[in-house]
Amino acid sequence: MTSKLEARQKARQDDIIAAARRCFRNSGFHAASMSQIAAEAKLSVGQIYRYFANKDAIIEEMIRRIIDYRIAEMEGKTQTKLMPHLLACRFTLSEDDDALMLEMSAEATRNPQVAAWLAEADERMFNNACTMLQKEHPHLSPERVRCCVEVIAVMMEGSIYRRLTPQKVSPEALEKIYQEIINMLITAK
Amino acid sequence: MTSKLEARQKARQDDIIAAARRCFRNSGFHAASMSQIAAEAKLSVGQIYRYFANKDAIIEEMIRRIIDYRIAEMEGKTQTKLMPHLLACRFTLSEDDDALMLEMSAEATRNPQVAAWLAEADERMFNNACTMLQKEHPHLSPERVRCCVEVIAVMMEGSIYRRLTPQKVSPEALEKIYQEIINMLITAK
Repeated sequence: MTSKLEARQKARQDDIIAAARRCFRNSGFHAASMSQIAAEAKLSVGQIYRYFANKDAIIEEMIRRIIDYRIAEMEGKTQTKLMPHLLACRFTLSEDDDALMLEMSAEATRNPQVAAWLAEADERMFNNACTMLQKEHPHLSPERVRCCVEVIAVMMEGSIYRRLTPQKVSPEALEKIYQEIINMLITAK
Repeated sequence: MTSKLEARQKARQDDIIAAARRCFRNSGFHAASMSQIAAEAKLSVGQIYRYFANKDAIIEEMIRRIIDYRIAEMEGKTQTKLMPHLLACRFTLSEDDDALMLEMSAEATRNPQVAAWLAEADERMFNNACTMLQKEHPHLSPERVRCCVEVIAVMMEGSIYRRLTPQKVSPEALEKIYQEIINMLITAK
């Protein structure tokens, strides 16, 4: 009985998050209210409040899920081998996730609560990437690993951001340069 | 007489742009309406329309000015010398400009008109940076110059984006790595 109830509650929560994502994508952070999210999820506002105390709680859960997905997708892959190609072709796991994170980042510049969630999300991603890179390249010092992850994070965020404007150079030429940068980063220091 | 009128019109236009910037920063793109901008500029809505046909025209002018300022600040500086330090300390010309560009980027994911202005702005910045880098390093092929500018742009955008979360490694260690990357980029190819 309990597990059936839990499954139904989980499904309802999923619906609300999906509806919130559509609202934020279509109308932006401020234009999407709790009542709009309820309407989009085909629920009453009262029902929504049974699952989430407020809009902030929905946003927190939405960010958490995006980061969980990104970490899960990193797992078990030799990141530094794939990285030059992924950067050069401006690869993304999900355009929708990227757009939502951009929306949240714009909001974070005026909303300390959203900024705190983004900082937490970034720290989780960062530490996870450090653990993976250290395992892949045990000869690197922990300090060097953190530097590498920071520079790779900068390049990934920058590439995702630049997907908004047309690519101006050939991905092949870019891939060679990114390969050189990654090689340099993981050389023993 | 004409120049006096022009000066007054220019001052009025400046006031409107400044008011629009404050509105977008405080309430986000969608929450800021023409009547809000008018109120913030202490003008009537009718007066605003004498200077800008609509909110889009204000946004276009706002983006144009941000890019003009960035290009003017690049002018006459040996970019590749300064770059490692600027990247490592996550330097920005203006936090307000960055936040507004982030707001515009989030909007660009659903608004093709804003996306087109950002693409135009990026192209102007990109071509300007290419001209400067080519002058600074005449031995580089034009194709190599474009690749360098793209990678530098990725690192700059990524660094600005990551200013939203706490820095996790020492700027000194980062600066050395960025220096190696820049040296590699401008080595004759």
